[in-house]
Amino acid sequence: MIPRYSRPEMAAIWSPETRFRIWFEIEAHACDALAELGVIPKSAAETIWKMGKAAEFDTARIDEIEREVKHDVIAFLTHLAEHVGPDARFVHQGMTSSDVLDTCFNIQLVRAADLLIADVDALLAALERRAFEHKLTPTIGRSHGIHAEPVTFGLKLAQAYAEFARNRARLVAAREEVATCAISGAVGTFANIDPRVEEHVAAALGLKPEPVSTQVIPRDRHAMFFATLGVVASSIERLATEIRHLQRTEVLEAEEYFSPGQKGSSAMPHKRNPVLSENLTGLARMVRAYALPAMENVALWHERDISHSSVERMIGPDATVTLDFALSRLAGVIDKLLIYPERMQSNLDRLGGLVHSQRVLLALTQKGVAREDAYRLVQRNAMPVWEKGGDFLALLKADADVRARLDEAELEALFDLDYHLKHVDTVFRRVFGRA
Amino acid sequence: MIPRYSRPEMAAIWSPETRFRIWFEIEAHACDALAELGVIPKSAAETIWKMGKAAEFDTARIDEIEREVKHDVIAFLTHLAEHVGPDARFVHQGMTSSDVLDTCFNIQLVRAADLLIADVDALLAALERRAFEHKLTPTIGRSHGIHAEPVTFGLKLAQAYAEFARNRARLVAAREEVATCAISGAVGTFANIDPRVEEHVAAALGLKPEPVSTQVIPRDRHAMFFATLGVVASSIERLATEIRHLQRTEVLEAEEYFSPGQKGSSAMPHKRNPVLSENLTGLARMVRAYALPAMENVALWHERDISHSSVERMIGPDATVTLDFALSRLAGVIDKLLIYPERMQSNLDRLGGLVHSQRVLLALTQKGVAREDAYRLVQRNAMPVWEKGGDFLALLKADADVRARLDEAELEALFDLDYHLKHVDTVFRRVFGRA
Amino acid sequence: MIPRYSRPEMAAIWSPETRFRIWFEIEAHACDALAELGVIPKSAAETIWKMGKAAEFDTARIDEIEREVKHDVIAFLTHLAEHVGPDARFVHQGMTSSDVLDTCFNIQLVRAADLLIADVDALLAALERRAFEHKLTPTIGRSHGIHAEPVTFGLKLAQAYAEFARNRARLVAAREEVATCAISGAVGTFANIDPRVEEHVAAALGLKPEPVSTQVIPRDRHAMFFATLGVVASSIERLATEIRHLQRTEVLEAEEYFSPGQKGSSAMPHKRNPVLSENLTGLARMVRAYALPAMENVALWHERDISHSSVERMIGPDATVTLDFALSRLAGVIDKLLIYPERMQSNLDRLGGLVHSQRVLLALTQKGVAREDAYRLVQRNAMPVWEKGGDFLALLKADADVRARLDEAELEALFDLDYHLKHVDTVFRRVFGRA
Amino acid sequence: MIPRYSRPEMAAIWSPETRFRIWFEIEAHACDALAELGVIPKSAAETIWKMGKAAEFDTARIDEIEREVKHDVIAFLTHLAEHVGPDARFVHQGMTSSDVLDTCFNIQLVRAADLLIADVDALLAALERRAFEHKLTPTIGRSHGIHAEPVTFGLKLAQAYAEFARNRARLVAAREEVATCAISGAVGTFANIDPRVEEHVAAALGLKPEPVSTQVIPRDRHAMFFATLGVVASSIERLATEIRHLQRTEVLEAEEYFSPGQKGSSAMPHKRNPVLSENLTGLARMVRAYALPAMENVALWHERDISHSSVERMIGPDATVTLDFALSRLAGVIDKLLIYPERMQSNLDRLGGLVHSQRVLLALTQKGVAREDAYRLVQRNAMPVWEKGGDFLALLKADADVRARLDEAELEALFDLDYHLKHVDTVFRRVFGRA
Repeated sequence: MIPRYSRPEMAAIWSPETRFRIWFEIEAHACDALAELGVIPKSAAETIWKMGKAAEFDTARIDEIEREVKHDVIAFLTHLAEHVGPDARFVHQGMTSSDVLDTCFNIQLVRAADLLIADVDALLAALERRAFEHKLTPTIGRSHGIHAEPVTFGLKLAQAYAEFARNRARLVAAREEVATCAISGAVGTFANIDPRVEEHVAAALGLKPEPVSTQVIPRDRHAMFFATLGVVASSIERLATEIRHLQRTEVLEAEEYFSPGQKGSSAMPHKRNPVLSENLTGLARMVRAYALPAMENVALWHERDISHSSVERMIGPDATVTLDFALSRLAGVIDKLLIYPERMQSNLDRLGGLVHSQRVLLALTQKGVAREDAYRLVQRNAMPVWEKGGDFLALLKADADVRARLDEAELEALFDLDYHLKHVDTVFRRVFGRA
Repeated sequence: MIPRYSRPEMAAIWSPETRFRIWFEIEAHACDALAELGVIPKSAAETIWKMGKAAEFDTARIDEIEREVKHDVIAFLTHLAEHVGPDARFVHQGMTSSDVLDTCFNIQLVRAADLLIADVDALLAALERRAFEHKLTPTIGRSHGIHAEPVTFGLKLAQAYAEFARNRARLVAAREEVATCAISGAVGTFANIDPRVEEHVAAALGLKPEPVSTQVIPRDRHAMFFATLGVVASSIERLATEIRHLQRTEVLEAEEYFSPGQKGSSAMPHKRNPVLSENLTGLARMVRAYALPAMENVALWHERDISHSSVERMIGPDATVTLDFALSRLAGVIDKLLIYPERMQSNLDRLGGLVHSQRVLLALTQKGVAREDAYRLVQRNAMPVWEKGGDFLALLKADADVRARLDEAELEALFDLDYHLKHVDTVFRRVFGRA
Repeated sequence: MIPRYSRPEMAAIWSPETRFRIWFEIEAHACDALAELGVIPKSAAETIWKMGKAAEFDTARIDEIEREVKHDVIAFLTHLAEHVGPDARFVHQGMTSSDVLDTCFNIQLVRAADLLIADVDALLAALERRAFEHKLTPTIGRSHGIHAEPVTFGLKLAQAYAEFARNRARLVAAREEVATCAISGAVGTFANIDPRVEEHVAAALGLKPEPVSTQVIPRDRHAMFFATLGVVASSIERLATEIRHLQRTEVLEAEEYFSPGQKGSSAMPHKRNPVLSENLTGLARMVRAYALPAMENVALWHERDISHSSVERMIGPDATVTLDFALSRLAGVIDKLLIYPERMQSNLDRLGGLVHSQRVLLALTQKGVAREDAYRLVQRNAMPVWEKGGDFLALLKADADVRARLDEAELEALFDLDYHLKHVDTVFRRVFGRA
Repeated sequence: MIPRYSRPEMAAIWSPETRFRIWFEIEAHACDALAELGVIPKSAAETIWKMGKAAEFDTARIDEIEREVKHDVIAFLTHLAEHVGPDARFVHQGMTSSDVLDTCFNIQLVRAADLLIADVDALLAALERRAFEHKLTPTIGRSHGIHAEPVTFGLKLAQAYAEFARNRARLVAAREEVATCAISGAVGTFANIDPRVEEHVAAALGLKPEPVSTQVIPRDRHAMFFATLGVVASSIERLATEIRHLQRTEVLEAEEYFSPGQKGSSAMPHKRNPVLSENLTGLARMVRAYALPAMENVALWHERDISHSSVERMIGPDATVTLDFALSRLAGVIDKLLIYPERMQSNLDRLGGLVHSQRVLLALTQKGVAREDAYRLVQRNAMPVWEKGGDFLALLKADADVRARLDEAELEALFDLDYHLKHVDTVFRRVFGRA
């Protein structure tokens, strides 16, 4: 997480101020439940809420205390007592630090997930708008980087839409994974705290009680969360790579928006580079990398160890802030993408009609030529065009073996572009529910 | 995937024979739909089914053809034609290799997921049985490897049960991710094949049509699948690590079953090592590693490239076979685990009662001592026991400041083990739905 | 490691036969040293060598014994005794299984490294030959996928040569890392075996004694080994990606050799796809992935645990066989690469001279125009050509502000291609030691 | 990189101030060379040095310019011109941004490597001191977490020393990998800049010229650098894991220093947890994770793309700052480690002498018992002690089959601890060059 690749709303989730505020709320909700159960005075719970709400927690002061006691939650509780006064002794009764830390981390992740889901929604909106705009804009479909057969630019965006719709669902599931709360005390036995406290705090904070915690909330949940972010990042890489390819000089079918005054290169004034998409490619590598330590965090020793903590202090913000930034950047790229249908058409025409080779092959087989023979007939007319250019249709017309099966009109009909677009609506209906 | 860590049922999914059989079924189901649509003769579809069902596909022969044509699906179709005869020209009409390859790969993954889910079920059964067996067997809970407070061995297993129940749900979701079928032709436009063929094949094979494929089924699905396997593997590592710790000489609270005639060490006849659990730790590292190339596979170029193929030929079998083996091995370890309650008790008693320090702390605060002061009072009696051994309760009784607040009987009551077990039923009900 | 991506020589290193043969040699060399030290009879050592050399070790029989004793080295020693007779009791005296296993694994890795180094040498030879062949073949240099300024195709290959020369040095260092031998007995104290045995075995097998082993050879060595393979694989990906780009339909400056009879697509007879390079991209992902579990293997518990073993049984063959295959395939791709200088020239000419924009910029600044102003002058003439095509030189000639500084002849001189090639020899001399 | 896990000296390398200062020096050295070659006036070079040295580069101002021009190097050069005046037009002549950025990044990595090497040196010093302090302190060697045979605590530390000595050598090699400079202009052809400029700048900054750069310095160098950091981190994890094990309640042979006033747990005042070592375990996971995107960065497109940039802005600081912090923390842990020889002795005695089982086995074989028979004889006396405790020696003395071969005195001699320590000096001489 570096400022260059951060957006304020996501970064704020990870600020010390937010963290201390969440800690306070967990403690104060727990006090409510403890008061309700008669463990602590109701007046104490009220005082704690009142003074805590009014307090500004002083990060520098808390850091100072932590340097002495070497324990972050104790440092916070000590500072809280400076605001709350004597009733502070009722705070954190029967709880352990992890109750606060883990529940807080999950709340931060849930909030982060909400932002990420909103980011995906914005991206989906941009993809849908541009997909319908270019639903029938013909462009060449490429496999292996080689011209294959015609598609439309809208289909490309529909594919990306479907992929990010899946990613949205995955993020919702990932959010669910971590939306739990543990207030179960040391080693998770509720020895010193009633399970009803956990239930109250969970409900108050929109979480579910963790069925069985062992001081810590089990880290398989977080592994799944960060692995999901890695998958979403990989989809970002896919779309970013597509744009980078489309902007290549020789292709130039689409281009990132280039603002007036922008400089593509300090040395070469003619350059307009897909730098945002390249940047997204790199950011995707980072988000993916964070999935690994999250998975290694699962195997904590016995009821818990604290090796996960340093990892999470880093990947918590790093992964969510980076992915938020990347999703938002990608939505902007799609939203303002410069799209060049004429260039798409001229590229389509580039191979002299070779992109229709399959249709010729199929037509020959339908005329009774064995598939193997038909393949050879088509390939022998295709390869010269591939190697030296030329007009595939003209060669076919001049090939006696081909003409023995297909007359001139039949051959010409096989070169019709619309033939390839007849099911675009079908696909759009599947993806968008409308065409 | 090596024989040492393979089980036959999972390995069979990845055999050439299985693959060719699935390819045949995809092609034959497609022929049915094509015949129904009038594209090919119904008699052809019938012949294809009849001859194909009867055929034994000869892997060596297919390999031989592939060496010539350098294309695996064409090699198979050529071989199929050797069995089917002239009607073979109606096979694969309007389809592309990826229609067969990708749908087949998904079928293999779905079958693999079914086995993995069954594996998890077996593991859950073992965990549940042993958890209830030791529901109230007291054992020390450890944080940071250090004695914390008492738990029960059943709680440890309940935690593992809850974790693998989550993993089961994740595997079901992962299976859903890849349970799709694409028969959409080159670059996925259905130009030469009616979308109803895809719908028919999907239904026949228990899959859903891929809403938008681009010759290939999008690889974000597979990334999610393999990432999920990585998370499951990480949970295996957690439980295996627990057993390794419990079997340590100084702990020895549980032990892998050691069969008569087994040798723990070629050099040291006294050894009984947790080698199965160590093995599981290593296998988990492997399954986790496979998640990464699966994520890198997402960003295929344009409508498709084939870089994913070599990865999947390796991780398809490697990840599923290894995880299947590991889950099955783990179920066996749990099922036959030697559990030593006496040793758990003697370890519990080892710290001279220090594990009750929190209760003393809380009791003092409830008597009106400020938390900070109470902490100091308890810690000053705890540290000598930590460092030199001794009886924590005796020291507390002899501490005038403590005794000013708590009398002898009150102190003794704080050392009651049952105090810690009172919510075991609550947790069991949450996890198992019964206690 | 799957047959499809294996070459026999590397695969043979990992066969059970090779492993047992190496085990035998380690044991037999150790017997020589033990006999020399008077620990066992010299006649026994001689018998062991004689009978062991003559023996064919029966993998099935060893597996059968292992199923009973559940220990691979004991199984082998039992089988060895079946060949050697009573003197077999002198084998393995004071040794532990790891002495045999770890030394054997290192020998296998050293042999694998030797093959990999030879693979790189073959690749370097191909790169050098093609680099000189195209030392002065002009082609466009691209940054961000966008035309930048002219380079030569030889320079591209020189870059790859320099990179693989570095990889060769890294492989030599990686080989050195693992070229050690440990015969130090249980927990590595030499309690039951004289360190001179280790020295003898090491020397006999071309290894160095491990300075301090703890039953196992420390796994940081192997982590470094496999991490190095991951870096080499990443370089393979770089060169493979270059070829994939060059073969794109719109670029088509080079192409993988396409053999007569080859089919690029089952559906589209016109296709010629860079499938080997795409395959290499995928294989690189795999080799890279194996670096991670190798790193996780380092933190064995205490003097040793056996979690590394399952990992190494998999990545030992998988990483080396796959990298060997990939390097060899890449050498073949380079060796037979179809290179199209005319297409390179026509692509170079494509941007209407924009690739000379930097020279115009510099010339203007040398004429006293402030860099910022010069940048704007050049960019305003470049952008129309970028967007609509046209002749950059003509526009510059028609721009009064430009002409105020540079006359027609000066402008024309700035569009000279040779200007960019004047230091090719310098670079070649740096890389190849000759130009 | 978060402040909690940062040390100022390493963090300073990555500050904007340091970066801009290095950029300036690269540009100014290049001006010297350009002036020497007569390309720019000598007075200009002098002015640039003079004004630049005196300047304080204003990060906020540069950021402001960057927001307009969207290019970091142009922003810096614009700001530099604000300090230097009209002669600034001679800066950056014929250079491209990457010349500055890549050379700067390498300088930062070289400086970081120097700090890391110094960190390792401090760790080695601590390890050596403690190793000699406990050269002959007996402790149990453990394999699989199970007592094996005696070692000394000094041997454990000698192993760590040898491992970090290897890591030092690896860091030196990694530093060498990235100690290169590129001033080769757009796409690396030196079209607009003489190669002698590069040679001059390299020499002035203690670097070597990159033999062939393509605008960027090839990223296989950086992949190797970060992979090496991942290996070093894995060694940290190994030593940290050892300490975590030793501090376990049941083992407690060593302990992290616990300062007065420190609190191990907010809830349990008796706790002293190995939190520093656990923290190191987590940090190791992070440093290891950064190796992956570094490897993915290698395959840049053609002469360069900029996808590596976002990765490096993150992992450059993150990996080096984290590893620096971890190495330094580990040195402190070792330096102040509390070591408990009495506890080591009592653990050693724990298994009733079972740790001598191998010696008994060997003695029996030396008396002519077949290995298999001897193994069974020893195992049948060992297992009861393993299972129920007891005195292994006494059981052996009472076993008639054993006594038929070994008399009482012979058996007792086999239980001598010194037997295991006789080669400690040998190992120390190998590792430290002295004993």
